[in-house]
Amino acid sequence: MNEKSLRDLLIRIKHDEISVDAGLDKLKDLPFEDLGFAKIDHHRQLRQGFPEVIYCAGKTTEQIVTIVEKLAEGADNNILATRASYEVYEAVAARIPDVEYYDSARLIVIRRGEQEKRGHILVVSAGTSDIPVAEEAAITAEVMGNRVERLYDTGVAGIHRLLCQTDKLLAARVIIVVAGMEGALVSVVGGLVDKPVIAVPTSVGYGASFGGLAALLAMLNSCSSGVSVVNIDNGFGAGYQASLINKLGEAGI
Amino acid sequence: MNEKSLRDLLIRIKHDEISVDAGLDKLKDLPFEDLGFAKIDHHRQLRQGFPEVIYCAGKTTEQIVTIVEKLAEGADNNILATRASYEVYEAVAARIPDVEYYDSARLIVIRRGEQEKRGHILVVSAGTSDIPVAEEAAITAEVMGNRVERLYDTGVAGIHRLLCQTDKLLAARVIIVVAGMEGALVSVVGGLVDKPVIAVPTSVGYGASFGGLAALLAMLNSCSSGVSVVNIDNGFGAGYQASLINKLGEAGI
Amino acid sequence: MNEKSLRDLLIRIKHDEISVDAGLDKLKDLPFEDLGFAKIDHHRQLRQGFPEVIYCAGKTTEQIVTIVEKLAEGADNNILATRASYEVYEAVAARIPDVEYYDSARLIVIRRGEQEKRGHILVVSAGTSDIPVAEEAAITAEVMGNRVERLYDTGVAGIHRLLCQTDKLLAARVIIVVAGMEGALVSVVGGLVDKPVIAVPTSVGYGASFGGLAALLAMLNSCSSGVSVVNIDNGFGAGYQASLINKLGEAGI
Amino acid sequence: MNEKSLRDLLIRIKHDEISVDAGLDKLKDLPFEDLGFAKIDHHRQLRQGFPEVIYCAGKTTEQIVTIVEKLAEGADNNILATRASYEVYEAVAARIPDVEYYDSARLIVIRRGEQEKRGHILVVSAGTSDIPVAEEAAITAEVMGNRVERLYDTGVAGIHRLLCQTDKLLAARVIIVVAGMEGALVSVVGGLVDKPVIAVPTSVGYGASFGGLAALLAMLNSCSSGVSVVNIDNGFGAGYQASLINKLGEAGI
Amino acid sequence: MNEKSLRDLLIRIKHDEISVDAGLDKLKDLPFEDLGFAKIDHHRQLRQGFPEVIYCAGKTTEQIVTIVEKLAEGADNNILATRASYEVYEAVAARIPDVEYYDSARLIVIRRGEQEKRGHILVVSAGTSDIPVAEEAAITAEVMGNRVERLYDTGVAGIHRLLCQTDKLLAARVIIVVAGMEGALVSVVGGLVDKPVIAVPTSVGYGASFGGLAALLAMLNSCSSGVSVVNIDNGFGAGYQASLINKLGEAGI
Amino acid sequence: MNEKSLRDLLIRIKHDEISVDAGLDKLKDLPFEDLGFAKIDHHRQLRQGFPEVIYCAGKTTEQIVTIVEKLAEGADNNILATRASYEVYEAVAARIPDVEYYDSARLIVIRRGEQEKRGHILVVSAGTSDIPVAEEAAITAEVMGNRVERLYDTGVAGIHRLLCQTDKLLAARVIIVVAGMEGALVSVVGGLVDKPVIAVPTSVGYGASFGGLAALLAMLNSCSSGVSVVNIDNGFGAGYQASLINKLGEAGI
Amino acid sequence: MNEKSLRDLLIRIKHDEISVDAGLDKLKDLPFEDLGFAKIDHHRQLRQGFPEVIYCAGKTTEQIVTIVEKLAEGADNNILATRASYEVYEAVAARIPDVEYYDSARLIVIRRGEQEKRGHILVVSAGTSDIPVAEEAAITAEVMGNRVERLYDTGVAGIHRLLCQTDKLLAARVIIVVAGMEGALVSVVGGLVDKPVIAVPTSVGYGASFGGLAALLAMLNSCSSGVSVVNIDNGFGAGYQASLINKLGEAGI
Amino acid sequence: MNEKSLRDLLIRIKHDEISVDAGLDKLKDLPFEDLGFAKIDHHRQLRQGFPEVIYCAGKTTEQIVTIVEKLAEGADNNILATRASYEVYEAVAARIPDVEYYDSARLIVIRRGEQEKRGHILVVSAGTSDIPVAEEAAITAEVMGNRVERLYDTGVAGIHRLLCQTDKLLAARVIIVVAGMEGALVSVVGGLVDKPVIAVPTSVGYGASFGGLAALLAMLNSCSSGVSVVNIDNGFGAGYQASLINKLGEAGI
Repeated sequence: MNEKSLRDLLIRIKHDEISVDAGLDKLKDLPFEDLGFAKIDHHRQLRQGFPEVIYCAGKTTEQIVTIVEKLAEGADNNILATRASYEVYEAVAARIPDVEYYDSARLIVIRRGEQEKRGHILVVSAGTSDIPVAEEAAITAEVMGNRVERLYDTGVAGIHRLLCQTDKLLAARVIIVVAGMEGALVSVVGGLVDKPVIAVPTSVGYGASFGGLAALLAMLNSCSSGVSVVNIDNGFGAGYQASLINKLGEAGI
Repeated sequence: MNEKSLRDLLIRIKHDEISVDAGLDKLKDLPFEDLGFAKIDHHRQLRQGFPEVIYCAGKTTEQIVTIVEKLAEGADNNILATRASYEVYEAVAARIPDVEYYDSARLIVIRRGEQEKRGHILVVSAGTSDIPVAEEAAITAEVMGNRVERLYDTGVAGIHRLLCQTDKLLAARVIIVVAGMEGALVSVVGGLVDKPVIAVPTSVGYGASFGGLAALLAMLNSCSSGVSVVNIDNGFGAGYQASLINKLGEAGI
Repeated sequence: MNEKSLRDLLIRIKHDEISVDAGLDKLKDLPFEDLGFAKIDHHRQLRQGFPEVIYCAGKTTEQIVTIVEKLAEGADNNILATRASYEVYEAVAARIPDVEYYDSARLIVIRRGEQEKRGHILVVSAGTSDIPVAEEAAITAEVMGNRVERLYDTGVAGIHRLLCQTDKLLAARVIIVVAGMEGALVSVVGGLVDKPVIAVPTSVGYGASFGGLAALLAMLNSCSSGVSVVNIDNGFGAGYQASLINKLGEAGI
Repeated sequence: MNEKSLRDLLIRIKHDEISVDAGLDKLKDLPFEDLGFAKIDHHRQLRQGFPEVIYCAGKTTEQIVTIVEKLAEGADNNILATRASYEVYEAVAARIPDVEYYDSARLIVIRRGEQEKRGHILVVSAGTSDIPVAEEAAITAEVMGNRVERLYDTGVAGIHRLLCQTDKLLAARVIIVVAGMEGALVSVVGGLVDKPVIAVPTSVGYGASFGGLAALLAMLNSCSSGVSVVNIDNGFGAGYQASLINKLGEAGI
Repeated sequence: MNEKSLRDLLIRIKHDEISVDAGLDKLKDLPFEDLGFAKIDHHRQLRQGFPEVIYCAGKTTEQIVTIVEKLAEGADNNILATRASYEVYEAVAARIPDVEYYDSARLIVIRRGEQEKRGHILVVSAGTSDIPVAEEAAITAEVMGNRVERLYDTGVAGIHRLLCQTDKLLAARVIIVVAGMEGALVSVVGGLVDKPVIAVPTSVGYGASFGGLAALLAMLNSCSSGVSVVNIDNGFGAGYQASLINKLGEAGI
Repeated sequence: MNEKSLRDLLIRIKHDEISVDAGLDKLKDLPFEDLGFAKIDHHRQLRQGFPEVIYCAGKTTEQIVTIVEKLAEGADNNILATRASYEVYEAVAARIPDVEYYDSARLIVIRRGEQEKRGHILVVSAGTSDIPVAEEAAITAEVMGNRVERLYDTGVAGIHRLLCQTDKLLAARVIIVVAGMEGALVSVVGGLVDKPVIAVPTSVGYGASFGGLAALLAMLNSCSSGVSVVNIDNGFGAGYQASLINKLGEAGI
Repeated sequence: MNEKSLRDLLIRIKHDEISVDAGLDKLKDLPFEDLGFAKIDHHRQLRQGFPEVIYCAGKTTEQIVTIVEKLAEGADNNILATRASYEVYEAVAARIPDVEYYDSARLIVIRRGEQEKRGHILVVSAGTSDIPVAEEAAITAEVMGNRVERLYDTGVAGIHRLLCQTDKLLAARVIIVVAGMEGALVSVVGGLVDKPVIAVPTSVGYGASFGGLAALLAMLNSCSSGVSVVNIDNGFGAGYQASLINKLGEAGI
Repeated sequence: MNEKSLRDLLIRIKHDEISVDAGLDKLKDLPFEDLGFAKIDHHRQLRQGFPEVIYCAGKTTEQIVTIVEKLAEGADNNILATRASYEVYEAVAARIPDVEYYDSARLIVIRRGEQEKRGHILVVSAGTSDIPVAEEAAITAEVMGNRVERLYDTGVAGIHRLLCQTDKLLAARVIIVVAGMEGALVSVVGGLVDKPVIAVPTSVGYGASFGGLAALLAMLNSCSSGVSVVNIDNGFGAGYQASLINKLGEAGI
C-alpha cells in the first residue's frame, strides 16, 4: 500500500468507482491471513522479495503443517522452513508433494519457483563441525535463487588451506564465514577481500565458548573492516542477507 | 601478489630477466612500511579498495601523526582516522594541510581523492543521542565515495515518524540503522524493506542497557530477516561495509 | 488484622467480651494452616483479593495434591496452579472434581467462584511460538475474573499486522505484550497507546537470546514510556498484575 | 489518525470538500516537527495523554534547549526533561520563564497546565541513598497530575518501620517501590497489598550489586504476585506508568 | 603435627628414642591414605573435628564405595556423603551395614558416633520447593551432633507466617535461611535477630533466576548485617558452618 | 514488642490502667525516629545488640551528619559509619566531639561505650593491597567490643608465610580471610582450622578479576568446609558477623 | 615451504629442471587432502611436530572414521582423537587395527610411532572428580612421547597431602594442574616451584561454579607467577603445550 | 627446607651440634621479613629463581618504597615493580640509585644482577595500541635475563605482514602473542609454529570487547594447539612464564 496505490484508491473513491466503505475495507484489510495462532504475511513476498520463512522451533507440528499449506497454495516462489525436525518434515510431506529435507541443516524446502541462478555467494567454514550451520546458510541462499560456492574446513590452525585458495575468496560477490570456537577465520578472510563479509558464530566448542559467545564477541570485535555479524548458529540469517546483497550486484540495482 | 603476477615473476626468472635473488626479494618484500611501532599496510588499498584506516584509541599522538603522514605521502585516496580527539586533530593539522575534523563523530578526514559520488546509503537513527555514532557511519561512507542520506530521531516510541517516510527507506540500496536502548528500530525497518540492513547498537542508555549490551543482543535476535550487526558504537564499521555493498550495486559487479 | 479490627479487639477485651488469653490467641493465631512442608496462606484472599496460587515446579506431586485439596475445601474462589505437568493434573483430578487443564499454558484451574466478567485486558503476542506464555497470562487473568482479548502473531517483522488493528490496542484497559527474540513489539505497542503495558519476555529464540535475556534487557530499556516488565516466561505474573490494574478501572477504585 | 477520522477524510474527499492532493497530504503529513537532529512528536499528547518527555543524556545543551522551546510554544501541558544537569537547567532557564529544577532527581519541569490533582500514588523507598530515584518517580507522577505520598527509608533491615505503616500501603491505588542492594522491600510490600506494585531497582550498592543488577534480578524473581519492574534507576518510567494506572482508577475508565 | 608434637619428636630423636630415619618418616608420613584416585584425609577429624565428607558428584560408584569403606573402618564418628544418587546408596548399603539414605537431600549417612545432641540451629526455608536444600543443611548439622529446628515455607509473600514465629527465630543460636527466587527472606530474618545468619541461595526459580544467581546476588547485597552466604544449593556447607558456630556457643570456647 | 510485653499491655488495657487509645498508640508507635529522609531505628540496639550503622555512600553530607547526631544523643554504645570520605568526617567532627577517622578503612567511629574487650577474632589478608578492606573488618569488630588479631600479606604465592603461623590460625575463635585476585587463601585457611571462616573477596586485581567477581566466585566454590562469604569489599559485614559469632563463644550462649 | 625450499624451487625452474607450470603447481599445491567436509592437514606434522588431532564433537561418526583412516595411512606417528564416544571408538576399531580407547578421558589412540619416552611432565589434580580431565592431559602427553607422572586428589582442603610431596613438584620439568570448584591448587603449586605451570579449570562443581567459570577466573587471576591457563576441561590442550615445553628441556633446543 | 636439609638438621640435633630449641627455631623461622603491612618473601629467589615482584596497584607509595628498599638491600638480582605510576618511580628513585622507569609498560626496574643474556623469546603484538602490554612482557623477560625479539603491529587484518616473517616465528623458543579486540592473531601464530605460545589478551577495543573479555574468550577457545593464556593486560605474567620456559631450553634442564 504505497503512495501510488493510495493515490489510485483515493481517486477511485472520488470517482465513485468504489464506495467509501469498500475503500475503508481496503485500507484496513492488509494482506495477511489470520489463522488465530498465526497471521500469515502474504504481503511479504511483495515487500521483501521472498515469502515468509517459517521458524519451526516452539511451534506444534500441526501449526507448522497448516502454515506451510497456506503458503504453498498457488505459490510461485520457493518455500523455506528452518529448524525443522525430521518428524515435522514427514508430517509436511504427507500433505504436500515434492518436499525436500536437508538433514544436517534442518531445513524443509518446497521448490515452486525455478528462479534463474544468480551471482555467486561463497560460504566458508572453519571446521567440519561447523558444516550444519554452513549448510543452513548455503541452502537458504540457493533456495532464494543464488549460485553458492562452498569452502569448508579451512580453520586458521592450518591457514595454508585457506591462503592457497584466495582466488576463490576474491571471486565471490559476498562471503559468509561460519566459525565456532574463537572465530578467528572471519578476521583473516575479512583482511584479504574487498567484498562484504557476513560472519556466523557457531556454538561449536565447549567450556569458555559459552555456547558460541566467544566466537560472537570475537567476530563483533574483528579488526578487519567490512565484517558484520548475525546470531549464533544463524546460518539462515546469513544466507538471507547474502542473497539481498548478491541481488544488488546482479542487477546493478 | 596474485597468481598472474606470480606466474609472470617465475617466467622472468626463467628467462633471466631478473636474478634468483631479486625474485626472492620480490617474493619476500611485501608492500608494507615498517615504522617499528607500526607496519603501514600500503597494500591495503589495492587489496580492499580503500587505504588503511587509523584507529586512534590507545595510540600516542606522536604515533598517529607519523602514521597519517606516511599514508598521506602522495596519496590519491581519502584518508580516515577514527576515535580521534580534538588534540590529535590539532597535532595532525599542524603537519598536514587541509585536514578536516568532525567533532561529534570524532573523525579526522583528509580528502585527497575526489571520487565520484556513488549510489545511495541511508543512515537511520533512533534518537538524538545516537547521532554521534550515526555521523561516524555517514561520514565514513561519504569519505569512501558514497552518497549518503540521513533520517534521524525516528525511534519506535513515535513510529509514525518512520512510517510516513517509508519511501525513503525503500529508495536506498543499503540501510544503516543506529539505535541504543532496546534497538527495536532495527526490526521495524528490517521488516519494511528488501535491502540489506546493517544494525549499529549504541551505548546510549543506562542501567540494564549495560553499555549497549541490551541493544546488541536485541539486534542479533531480530525477528526481521536481512539484518546483520556490528560492534556497539561502531559507526565506522557499518559505514565501511555499507560502502562495499553499495559498490556492488553501483557497478553490477 | 488492620487498625479497625485491632481497635475492635481491644475494646472487646476491655469490655470483657473476650478474655485476655482469647485475645492473645487471636493476635497470635494468624490465618494460615501449617502442613509442615507448607504453610497455606488462607489469609491471602482477604489480603490480596485472590487465594494463594500454587507454583508447582520443585514440589512433589503429593505435596501439590495436598495443598490443592486444602485450598479447595469450601472455596468460593477459583483456584490456580502454575507450571503443572499433565501428570500432576491427573493426580489432582483423581481427588477433586471439575479440574481443568490447559496444556500449552501448563495451568490447572478449579473454578469455584463464578465471578462477574470484568473489564478488558488485551494479550498481544509476537510469534506463534510465544503462545504458551501468552495463554498462561490470558487464562490467569480470566480465572481471576477478567474479560480477555487476544491478538497473536503480530511481530514487527510484518508490522502491518499490528498497525491495522490499533483500534484493538486502543480499546483495552491494560495490555500484556508477550515476545521472545528481540522483544521489539513492546516498544511499538507502548508508543501507540495511553494505557499501561506489561511486557513479558519469553525464552523463544536461540544463540544470543541466552534463554530470554535479550528480550528481557530490550524490554527494560524500552524507549516507550508506560512499560514495565515481569520475569522471562512469567505469563502468570503479567496476568495477575493486569487483573489488579483492570479492577482499578472497573470500580473507579 | 484513527478509523473515525480516516472515514471522515474519505467522505470529505468523496464530497469534493477537499482535493485528492490535500487528502494525500493529510495522510502523509503526520504531526511531528522535524528539526533535523530531532523530530518532535507533537502528536504524543493526543496519543498518550502527555507530551514527549526529553531524555537529556547524550544530547548537547543546544539540542535540549531547542527541543524544550519547541515543546513549550503555546503548551497547555506540563513539560518534563529527565537526567538533566544543572548546567542544562541554567541554559533552559535563560530562554524560558518559570522553569523549575529538582536537584537530586535531576529533573527540569515547566508547569504550563494546572491539572486537577488526581488519585494517590505511594512511593516507598528502602534507604536514604535511594531517594534521588524515588524523587524522580514522585515528581514525574506529580507533574503528570497525580497526588503522590512518600514513605522513605523503610528497608527490611528494620521491617517494623514498614509494618507499622501498612495502612499507608493499603490506602494507595498504585505503589512504586524503590530499592537498591538486594531489593527485598519489593517482595515484602507486594505480599501485603492488593494493588499493583511497580518496582524500581537502583544502582545503590557496591561489589556484587553490579550497578543494580542484583536488585533488578531480585525484583524480577519476586515471590509476591502483582509486581512488575522497570529499568535500574528508572524513576521516571515508574512514575509514568503509575500515572497511567492511577488514571484508570480515577475515572473508572 | 603442631609445635608441641614437633618439639617432642625432636627431643626423642635427640635422646635416641627414635632414629633419625624414623623421625624423618614421621615428618614425611602425614596421615592420609593413598588410593591412587583419592587420598583419604584421615587427619581431618583431628584437624577439623569431623571426618572428610564425600562429594559424590563426578565420582564413579566404585570410587565412592571404596572411599566410604576406608572411612568407615573402625570409625567412631558419623560419616556423610553428599549429592549421592539412590544407586550409589544401594551400592554402599550392599557393602556396609546400617547405611541411611535421605532422598530429597541426596545424603548418605552412616552413624557410628552417638554424639550428645548439642545446642540449637534453626533452618528456615522460603518455599516448599526449597526443602531439599534445607534438608541437606539440617541433616548435615544433625549428623555433626547438633539439635536442629525447622521452620519451612515462610516466604515473604505471606510474611505473617514468619512474623508470628519470631520467638523461634530469637531462640536459636545460629540460623540458616534457605531461599530461591529473590531470596528476600534472608534480609527480613537478618533484620530481626542478633545471631549469625547463614544464607543459602537455591536454584528454585526460572528465567531471570539464572540458576540461582538472582538469589545469590540478593543475599550478598543484603541490607541486614550479620549475614554471610554459601554457594547456590549448598545446604551441606551451611549446615557444616552452622555446626562450627554452634559448638562455640556450646562450650563457651 | 514480644509476646510477654503484648500480654502485659493487654492486661493493662483490661484493667483500665491505660486507655484503648493509648494502647493503640503503643502498638502503632514503634521505636524509630522519622527524619523524613531517614527513619532512625533506635530499636536496633535492643533487637540486634548494636545500634544502626550508617552506610554513607549515596547520602548527602547533611543527611549523614543529622543521622549521626541523632544516634549520638545520649548514646552508651559505640557508633559506626562506613564508606565515609574525609570530607564527611570533617563535617561530623565539626558537630560532635571525639570522632575518630580511619583513613584506609574509610570508617568514622564515635566511642561512647567502653565495652569489655571480648574474645579473639583473627583477620588474615592475602596481600598488602587488601589491607583497607581488612582494616574495615578489624575496626568494625573492635568497635563492637571484640579483641582482634591481624595477620597480613600471607598470600599463597609464598605459602610458608602462612603455614609457619598456623598456631595463630588455631588460636582464634573466628577467622576473617580477606583476599582479592583468585582468593585462594580462603580455601587454604579453611582446610587448616576447625573454626568458622568468613571470606571477604576484594576488588584488588585487574582484567578478568572483573571488580572482584573472580575472588567472589572462587570463595563461594571453596572446597574447604566451614566457609561462608560476604559481598566484595564488604569488610564491615565480615567484622559484624564475626562479632556475633565471637559473642556466642564468649558467653557460651 | 620455507625460504630454503623456495630458493631451491626457483633455482630448479631457472635451470629448467622443472617447468614453470610444475613450479606453479608446487607453489599452489600445499600439502593437505580435501575430503570435501574436511581438509586433512598432512603438513601439520612437519610444521608442528605432531599430526592433526581430531576433535570429535560435532562430527558424524562417518566423518571421523574417514579422517582417521586418512591420517593412519602409512603413518609413523601416533594418532589422537579427542572427545570421542565409545560408539565412535567401536566404529573406528571396526576399520583400523590396534585402536585403544581411554574411557574416562574419552580419547582414541592409535599407536604407530614408538617414540623414545622423553622428559617428565607432572599432572596434579585437585579432586577425584577432576581425574577424567587430568587423564586427558596425561594420555595426550604420553601419546606425544613424554614421560608423565600423576599426583591426584591433592586439593587444598587437606593441603598436607600436597606439601609432603613437594619433591615430586620440584622434580618435574612442567606441571599441569587440573582443578574445578575454586581452583586454588594452581596458586599453591605455582608458588612452590620454579617451572612453568599450565592450569586446567574443570567444570567440576555446581551453582556459582557456572560450568567452570569460577575456576577459570581464579586461575587467570592467580597471584603466583609462572602460571598460564587453557580452556575449561581442556586436558588435551594442556597436555599438548606441556609436551612442546618438555621437548625444549629435552634437547636444550 | 627440602628433605636433604631437614635430614641434615635432624642429624645435627642428634649430634648435639645444635640445640633442640635452635632446631625448633630453624624449623619455625622461615625466611621472610615481616613489615606488618607486608611479609617480604626473601626465600622466593631460592624457590623460584627470581625475587618477589612488587605489584604496585592498591599499595601506598610509602609501602612500595619500603618494600623496594628491603628487596634492594644487598641484592644481586634485578628487581621489578609492575603497574607503577611515574609518581611512585620518582619516590623510589629519590631513595635508591640507578632506578629505571619504562613509561608505557609502567615498570620500575633496578638492575643489580648482570645476568648472561639467554635464549630468545619473541613478543608479537597485533596493533600499535597493544604495545604497552607487549612492552611489559618484553621488559619483564629481559630483566629476568632473556634475549627478547619484538614483532609489532602484525594484526590479521593485513596478514601478509606476519606471513612474510614466519622465519622470525620459527626461530624463537617461546612466543608471546599480545592482542586486543578479537585476538585472532594467537590462533594464526599458534598454527604456524611448533613452540609454546603464551597468549595475552589486552583491553584494547570498545563496546562488545567488554574490557578484553572478547579477546580472552577467543584465546581460550583457540583452535590452534600449543596455546595457553594469561589474564587480560598481564604482560608481566606472560614474560615471567616465557622466561621459565626459555630457561628449560637454555640448559636442557
